[in-house]
Amino acid sequence: LDYQHVQVPFEITLWIMLASLAKIGFHLYNKLPSVVPESCLLIFVGLIMGGIIYGLNDKSPPVMDSDIFFLYLLPPIVLDAGYFMPSRPFFENIGTILLYAVMGTIWNVFGIGFSLYGICQVKAFHLQDVSLLHNLLFGSLIAAVDPVAVLAVFEEIHVNEKLHILVFGESLLNDAVTVVLYKLFRSFCEMPTIKTMDVFAGVGKFFVVGLGGVLVGLAFGMTAAFTTRFTKDIRVIEPLFVFLYSYLSYLTAEMFHLSGIVAIIACAMGMKRYVEANISLKSHTTVKYFMKMWSSVSDTLIFIFLGVSTIGENHEWNWPYICFTLIFCLVWRALGVLVLTFFVNRFHVNTITSKDQFIIAYGGLRGAICFSLVFLLPDFHRKKLFIAATTVVILFTVFVQGMTIRPLVDLLAVKRKRESAPTVGEQIHIRFLDHLLAGIEDISGHWGQYYWKDKLEYFNSKYLQKILLREYNQSKSSIVLLYEKLERKHAIELAEAGQLGHGLSHPSLLHSCFLCSNDDRTVITDKKLEDTLNPDVLDNIQEILARNLYRIRRTGPAYNRHTLPGETEPVEHAKEILILRHKSL
Amino acid sequence: LDYQHVQVPFEITLWIMLASLAKIGFHLYNKLPSVVPESCLLIFVGLIMGGIIYGLNDKSPPVMDSDIFFLYLLPPIVLDAGYFMPSRPFFENIGTILLYAVMGTIWNVFGIGFSLYGICQVKAFHLQDVSLLHNLLFGSLIAAVDPVAVLAVFEEIHVNEKLHILVFGESLLNDAVTVVLYKLFRSFCEMPTIKTMDVFAGVGKFFVVGLGGVLVGLAFGMTAAFTTRFTKDIRVIEPLFVFLYSYLSYLTAEMFHLSGIVAIIACAMGMKRYVEANISLKSHTTVKYFMKMWSSVSDTLIFIFLGVSTIGENHEWNWPYICFTLIFCLVWRALGVLVLTFFVNRFHVNTITSKDQFIIAYGGLRGAICFSLVFLLPDFHRKKLFIAATTVVILFTVFVQGMTIRPLVDLLAVKRKRESAPTVGEQIHIRFLDHLLAGIEDISGHWGQYYWKDKLEYFNSKYLQKILLREYNQSKSSIVLLYEKLERKHAIELAEAGQLGHGLSHPSLLHSCFLCSNDDRTVITDKKLEDTLNPDVLDNIQEILARNLYRIRRTGPAYNRHTLPGETEPVEHAKEILILRHKSL
Repeated sequence: LDYQHVQVPFEITLWIMLASLAKIGFHLYNKLPSVVPESCLLIFVGLIMGGIIYGLNDKSPPVMDSDIFFLYLLPPIVLDAGYFMPSRPFFENIGTILLYAVMGTIWNVFGIGFSLYGICQVKAFHLQDVSLLHNLLFGSLIAAVDPVAVLAVFEEIHVNEKLHILVFGESLLNDAVTVVLYKLFRSFCEMPTIKTMDVFAGVGKFFVVGLGGVLVGLAFGMTAAFTTRFTKDIRVIEPLFVFLYSYLSYLTAEMFHLSGIVAIIACAMGMKRYVEANISLKSHTTVKYFMKMWSSVSDTLIFIFLGVSTIGENHEWNWPYICFTLIFCLVWRALGVLVLTFFVNRFHVNTITSKDQFIIAYGGLRGAICFSLVFLLPDFHRKKLFIAATTVVILFTVFVQGMTIRPLVDLLAVKRKRESAPTVGEQIHIRFLDHLLAGIEDISGHWGQYYWKDKLEYFNSKYLQKILLREYNQSKSSIVLLYEKLERKHAIELAEAGQLGHGLSHPSLLHSCFLCSNDDRTVITDKKLEDTLNPDVLDNIQEILARNLYRIRRTGPAYNRHTLPGETEPVEHAKEILILRHKSL
Repeated sequence: LDYQHVQVPFEITLWIMLASLAKIGFHLYNKLPSVVPESCLLIFVGLIMGGIIYGLNDKSPPVMDSDIFFLYLLPPIVLDAGYFMPSRPFFENIGTILLYAVMGTIWNVFGIGFSLYGICQVKAFHLQDVSLLHNLLFGSLIAAVDPVAVLAVFEEIHVNEKLHILVFGESLLNDAVTVVLYKLFRSFCEMPTIKTMDVFAGVGKFFVVGLGGVLVGLAFGMTAAFTTRFTKDIRVIEPLFVFLYSYLSYLTAEMFHLSGIVAIIACAMGMKRYVEANISLKSHTTVKYFMKMWSSVSDTLIFIFLGVSTIGENHEWNWPYICFTLIFCLVWRALGVLVLTFFVNRFHVNTITSKDQFIIAYGGLRGAICFSLVFLLPDFHRKKLFIAATTVVILFTVFVQGMTIRPLVDLLAVKRKRESAPTVGEQIHIRFLDHLLAGIEDISGHWGQYYWKDKLEYFNSKYLQKILLREYNQSKSSIVLLYEKLERKHAIELAEAGQLGHGLSHPSLLHSCFLCSNDDRTVITDKKLEDTLNPDVLDNIQEILARNLYRIRRTGPAYNRHTLPGETEPVEHAKEILILRHKSL
């Protein structure tokens, strides 16, 4: 037995296997998913696993390695989130999302940090040694809403698109703020004195980190799109490029201390439309499927690891500090949402209702990012207290809030997601209104959302598409593509139901027509029918059909006050049919 | 800049990216693939890369890590090979393949080993210090035909199926022999004295390694099939199980010193039919696509690494030894094929022609497995000589044989692969003959191939399918499945050509029927037509159609000597139609 040789891949494979089997088990018992969110159950599995490891080895089970989390588990989830991001609601609400992500996170960080510092001054709690900076550092890691936890819960409760994108978009974009504040406070903790310059540098850094991430992401996204122009002869590696380039964008951003999450989202959103147009249909299925699969496994592993890491002796249970952390997290988030929404609603016609505000505040779940960040903290004597507080906040938000949010959504009758996709008619209307509003904005000189969207679309079709697409075909609008997709789907359905005529050629069509109209399925085979239909029978049928169909069609719109119904002669019928035929040719 | 943090994943991603881009570049210039095999070009790219690294750093570039090769690069290729193995020709020729793989490899190992030992006795070559055991050890690693190299070349030359499976099957199954002999000689080298017992243990070990691999593979394959029974509600992780279980089978086999290659092939071939039946169509596309993609990237990386590792100062250039190694490799393989084929042809009606024999001997390419094994050798003073000899043999076989085999196949007019898939008629014939032969074998008491196949099929449908398939549906034979597949394909083609009627429902069918038969496309829209077709028009059409179609159908088979044509009354027509209708209901 040579276990050491295969240990690394073997254990990785076994963990993934455990995650997948846990997922299967969870879905086997049908009632479970409707009551408990998957994330809770996976944490529970993790807790049990951790307990077993703890019991057997009599020492703390290994905690989730921050490197593994940030380098291998997080990217697939963020990539999936970015690639399948509904771009229209995202860009429509980008202002609000950014406000929540930037101002909201800063508000929470300082609110939680300062009020915890206040708690630390109470002598009875024995916490005087926790400095303001340490409290702010802790605030910066506990304040951020976690995209993985939010996605896991919100994917199951189906709230309306705007509410979903507000919470989810915030959780993604606050990464830039978290990275900056966390690193800022961490370096402040290690500095002997802090100058005013450093604080301003920190503020400036936020823009560098956020915008730098976007630029890195877009650069890799465009390169990916450009590369897929040349994969026509080697379809099989097309899906690879989508994954490679987006992963490279994440790693590059991390390397330069930029926001990797922002980078990978920008990359995915940037390349999506070009890559989709360039690669084959099967490649695209593979890309979508593998992305979902990968993110689903990562997600599962994260929650299981969260559970495993909770067990052990890494915690210092100072209950006042922990309880106040939890309370402040809830209170400051609620206050932040109320204040920010007040400003947002003043500038928007389509306001955020108070129900929505409640769900936004309540949906502020914390997750594995906080957990990894707290373990990344430099060693100091209160680190175990921070770990304990973080663990409790995460477990509370995921279990209590995650499990009660669905009943609350039902109770408050929050507007749900519409079940059906928009019809083609609606889509045309939306498109038309976009053009109209872009025109109005252009005339009125107001450079709003529609103006920029129109300009971007122009730039896209004028330059980007020509460079990035293999077959640049302007005429194929999305409606035509949708139509083709529907046709294909319909055809497959027909084939699977066995209703497809074998070659919708002349006699077989007649055959199926005959079967339909006669409403009984005689045993006449196709072959026989083809043999038996001689020209004069066909003429006969044609005549009947033409006369009958024409006569009734005429009864509707043909009326005018100078003619009587049925006045036109058969000859005229033939003439009109002839004219129609010429027109159609 | 924090490169160290992201180094490992970043460099892995960059290597894969390089491999993918090399592949794209190779296919961009259309003439290249038809002249040079891809493997040669990739080694060439690797040589250049290695030269650059050597030039820049002034030290040998890193050689391909044997662990990386055996644990990460080889499994995807073997999995792909096993999953897409044409099982019929494989099992039809299993005897011949095993003979080549086992006896042929042993023949080559001892032939090369002993004759090289002879060369070492020549004083002029300064090789007296290389012992017989070392020569045999070297023979055991250089004798094995490499599946990766064989696949890379044979996939491009399209020889007939039997020839392909003989060479390819041998290259896969000789792994068990190679593993045993390599480990045996390596342990002999380190032992002070060798007892006869050890030799016998070695022979016994061969069966353990080979059959053990098969058992491990089948166990994991069956578990995989069983697991996919329960993935109905969570389709998205279905492809994962195919990869996880086959990788686990490989790792487990390696852990117990069994043949990992044999295990993964048994796993893939075992689970294929059940997994395919259980998982969704999209999952299956993803599995196939990702397998091909992964193996293609692994393959590319292996050849690039081969090139990179060739550059440097790991070699001892004793030319007599190297040249004689090359010559003995070619000669002993040719002799082995001739002798073994002589015996094979004596017991088979469908013999292996001399042309085929030549291609089998000539197609014995060496590749990355030899290369990794030679680096895994324990350190001794002639290791660099062995590395040099291995490198030359690999480069010679891949470049010279790989590039000339296609012209030779053309020149000799070796029978090619048939272009088209077998028709349904042929398939039915083959199935019928299989049953017939199984029956004959059963009656004659000869337990041959067909007898076992039939028994296995019985066991499969009686027990295995019931346990492993989610929806056990015996009636869906492969011909029905093929039909469904063709229907689906046809439907998609129709949809893409825009010839599909929109919903082949009642009125629209009539409409298309009318359009067809009238042979002109009037501008009457679907909508109008639906409105205008009232019941009595339909009755009218039905009557016409029924009468006309019935009358002509009757003229054929209705004749008998007691009735005259046209004798039956209209009432009888109606009666007959009624009976037919009842029957069909």
